[in-house]
Amino acid sequence: MTRRAPTGAALLQPAVTKAITESVLAEWAENGYARLSMEAVAKRAGVGKSALYRRWPSKQEMAMSVIADFSVTRAATPDTGSLRGDLREALDSLHAWLTDEHFARILPDLVAETARNPELGEFVKDMIGTPRREHSAAMLHRAAERGELAPDADLELVQDLIASPLYWRLSVRGAAAEPDYLDKLTDLILRSISTIHSGPRGSEPPTATGSA
Amino acid sequence: MTRRAPTGAALLQPAVTKAITESVLAEWAENGYARLSMEAVAKRAGVGKSALYRRWPSKQEMAMSVIADFSVTRAATPDTGSLRGDLREALDSLHAWLTDEHFARILPDLVAETARNPELGEFVKDMIGTPRREHSAAMLHRAAERGELAPDADLELVQDLIASPLYWRLSVRGAAAEPDYLDKLTDLILRSISTIHSGPRGSEPPTATGSA
Repeated sequence: MTRRAPTGAALLQPAVTKAITESVLAEWAENGYARLSMEAVAKRAGVGKSALYRRWPSKQEMAMSVIADFSVTRAATPDTGSLRGDLREALDSLHAWLTDEHFARILPDLVAETARNPELGEFVKDMIGTPRREHSAAMLHRAAERGELAPDADLELVQDLIASPLYWRLSVRGAAAEPDYLDKLTDLILRSISTIHSGPRGSEPPTATGSA
Repeated sequence: MTRRAPTGAALLQPAVTKAITESVLAEWAENGYARLSMEAVAKRAGVGKSALYRRWPSKQEMAMSVIADFSVTRAATPDTGSLRGDLREALDSLHAWLTDEHFARILPDLVAETARNPELGEFVKDMIGTPRREHSAAMLHRAAERGELAPDADLELVQDLIASPLYWRLSVRGAAAEPDYLDKLTDLILRSISTIHSGPRGSEPPTATGSA
């Protein structure tokens, strides 16, 4: 589960790693990154601090490793055979990620922390943002191969569009997103991304290609 | 500029209010809400603490009042005569709000703080979220009156869609949004919202009504 395998990795007990990981998430959610300490995590997990240092050299490495594993293993990798099916599953995965009891409190704190700490921001981008976007890019490439996506669709923009409305709604506005909302959001994204053109605006009239 | 006008409001000097307001934004951006103090704000503004207490009873009232004024006065109220024109101006306003030197650091911190402090969350919703959404709702109602919006468009969803991609891109991902990105985003949103149906998905095939 851990991204880094320091010396002695073969001897690390998975059950201990699991207890530590859960403690990191719980402590971070309760107290925020700034007040997260390896002491408190060790105490909560019922292990010695050495168990943590055998796995990670510092609090930042520990926190980033745990949150990256949590986030990347929850990245959507749907392959339902249709863009609509894949999108709907991707939104479900995103919803589960953003509403996780601990992570719902960790993410806003993490975003705030990265605004103050550029090094942390680079970690987050490399260990969470990029791997997650690779999954959604693969989903979109499959759709393009099936002819469901406009050939000149702007993948960068499409990826922002898929991820952002749920984040805005759940994390920023503190509102709920019922399955019906996810259905309608799927429709809306689907209708948009088959008609995105990266050329100058107005160069082509919108066309309904009907990607369902 | 202030939302609350305590006793003696007539005697409050606008220049002092302005200096205090700027100090609140700078202190909050530098140190975060948790470490924001009325002492530091007063010192930075070059005024006595009494000047602050004449305006607001507490740090929370001060912070919310300043940030609400800052945000609501920057809400887009475009009325260009077309949905495309209004949307593009709304995205420009949103971009200016989210990339303000101080506010770019304040907003992630505020979102994190509201996740921990429900009372603050209610303030933000009442004093920032709701007034800003009223402006965008007015823009969409005008578009509906001009026949540019599907009559059954889901305004709740549309409003999430307008605001979220830029927030995600600028604040969460730390990426830039060039004018070309805003142009393409305008196109994409425009193409979506003239074909949103709030009925069961798949009940109507997508149609290109060409709202430009």
